[in-house]
Amino acid sequence: MASEAVFLALKDAEIKPAEVDACFFANGFAARLFGDMTIGQNVFWELGINKIPVVNVENACTSGSTAFYLAYNMVAAGQADIVMVAGAEKMYVPELGLINSGETELETQLGLVASAGFALRAIRHMNEFGTTPQQLAQVAVKNRRHGQLNPFAQFRQPITVEEVLASPMIVEPFTRLQCCPNADGAAAAIVCSPTLTKHLSRVVNIEAVILCTGSYENLQDLTHWETDYRACRLAYEKAGIGPEDLDVVECHDAFTISEILHYEALGLCPKGEGGKLIEKGETALGGRIPVNVSGGLLSRGHPVGATGVAQIIEIVTQLRNEAGARQVEGAKVGLAHCMGGDKAADTKSCTIVVLSV
Amino acid sequence: MASEAVFLALKDAEIKPAEVDACFFANGFAARLFGDMTIGQNVFWELGINKIPVVNVENACTSGSTAFYLAYNMVAAGQADIVMVAGAEKMYVPELGLINSGETELETQLGLVASAGFALRAIRHMNEFGTTPQQLAQVAVKNRRHGQLNPFAQFRQPITVEEVLASPMIVEPFTRLQCCPNADGAAAAIVCSPTLTKHLSRVVNIEAVILCTGSYENLQDLTHWETDYRACRLAYEKAGIGPEDLDVVECHDAFTISEILHYEALGLCPKGEGGKLIEKGETALGGRIPVNVSGGLLSRGHPVGATGVAQIIEIVTQLRNEAGARQVEGAKVGLAHCMGGDKAADTKSCTIVVLSV
Repeated sequence: MASEAVFLALKDAEIKPAEVDACFFANGFAARLFGDMTIGQNVFWELGINKIPVVNVENACTSGSTAFYLAYNMVAAGQADIVMVAGAEKMYVPELGLINSGETELETQLGLVASAGFALRAIRHMNEFGTTPQQLAQVAVKNRRHGQLNPFAQFRQPITVEEVLASPMIVEPFTRLQCCPNADGAAAAIVCSPTLTKHLSRVVNIEAVILCTGSYENLQDLTHWETDYRACRLAYEKAGIGPEDLDVVECHDAFTISEILHYEALGLCPKGEGGKLIEKGETALGGRIPVNVSGGLLSRGHPVGATGVAQIIEIVTQLRNEAGARQVEGAKVGLAHCMGGDKAADTKSCTIVVLSV
Repeated sequence: MASEAVFLALKDAEIKPAEVDACFFANGFAARLFGDMTIGQNVFWELGINKIPVVNVENACTSGSTAFYLAYNMVAAGQADIVMVAGAEKMYVPELGLINSGETELETQLGLVASAGFALRAIRHMNEFGTTPQQLAQVAVKNRRHGQLNPFAQFRQPITVEEVLASPMIVEPFTRLQCCPNADGAAAAIVCSPTLTKHLSRVVNIEAVILCTGSYENLQDLTHWETDYRACRLAYEKAGIGPEDLDVVECHDAFTISEILHYEALGLCPKGEGGKLIEKGETALGGRIPVNVSGGLLSRGHPVGATGVAQIIEIVTQLRNEAGARQVEGAKVGLAHCMGGDKAADTKSCTIVVLSV
């Protein structure tokens, strides 16, 4: 999977393997599944990319965007001209079963697995702001509708609010169709110095790349990730834009409530009004600010190491006006938001990438 | 373990947690052992380091030095002033047993586990250059003698050539005392911009940091890692020195033959004469160019994610003239060499760090 993604990225950019100066590979579980701590080297070697620095990166759901952050830093610093970023994940191996996460952490052992943690946030948001089960379900319905238009999406059959709410209960208020599925997948992107890309027409500019870790300082408001708000603010500052300048957004909809909370952190609507935003259809394709046009984690799928890169690729595809049936018309500025390692106190990692044409 | 190492590094550098701009954490197996893909965030959080970018890095035995490479790049590029590098590894968890590596690779499945691969290189070197079992054993004896003087070493009892050769056979020609032991451990270092360190007396300068991956292009000579030679050449070029300028070296003595092969790649002696170099005592404390004064992987131990950082710390300690009984007198220039993911065709990753005072 990863080799195919790297091959397609090289082909798309018309770059030869020998021209790549450095590589970052994002993956969470190869060490667990295969005992392999140099999986990136294996992948790049298959494509004839060798000798150069290769780093394997791991940062939970933000692994792919963290790899992109390192690639961007290297090019921005003049330490490399062409850097390959790839991410891949195999979530299921028959002999080992599904992978879990954070097994030794006390709060996980006490029952606060990912779905339960996000459920607490959802219940709090419903209680505080009147967000409804129907509004939560509408996130899944919208992202499935988008996923139908994406040939790379894992799930492409339409669903209704009624079907979402009637699917098996996982942890209140989330039914199964409100939790992102396990997916195997891979994605790759190439970061180049501007001097190399002058003559190319399909280039997308990087306006900001932000990586933050959690503050863990307090737990006063389950509907407010401090890290999420801080990362968004830093990204807007760096890019010199505000939420009103965005044409298209990919965000980390691990659960339906996540997308609603990220609307608010990103400033797409005031705090507490995320439920109303989805209900009004403003974040659907054709709306004011389409979110997760790829289908998002909920329908495109969530192969952990690949996700952060896949989000960036969706924004690149949109800004290049190459997204076909799911094209956001005239998209000039896009943002990819990713978050990883959510715990009750705070999330462990948050990344924002702002792109423009 | 990791928190203690980070705490000691902060204390040594007289830096407050809030002053750190970014962190890199090296670890191979937390995902496997604990299902944890953000182990670095957990460690740094315990020390009050939060909000800033944190990246978890994985590159087999070079994980720690790869983290150092990323930290150096970030500071060199002016993207940060103070960067924390930490590495840690837990190699044994009772319920899971010992960790292995590369289980799905064909050559591993066919029997070419790490010890067997290095054994092939040893046999070839013995055949080609007349290197003797006694010379191999002398590497283990020397490094144990060094380890005796290092309070952080895992093994501190002296051993003789006879004892080394009489210990249980693992894979010909390696007896058990010629294979590095499994060790739990942690190490941490701080990379600062020169502007911040002007007033400090115990600062060590970074002259070169090189990260290479394998060429995998041919397998013509089992006694010659192309990557090893290439990384050494690049490091000498970057630092503007030659092997004759080195006062102290840490190298990746995973097996006794490794140290002999690295002597040759580093240019401490001509190709084929590594066995004679150890026999003449030139690489022992008090000799012309002391190697692995810490005890090396063979006696200090080899906690994978920590190793690359621990090597750098030994060189720093030597250049600061703080190594006590194992001090290399007047050491001004030192080199730390690390290698990871050895396969028959080539090694997957090699790092070199050159330091000076």
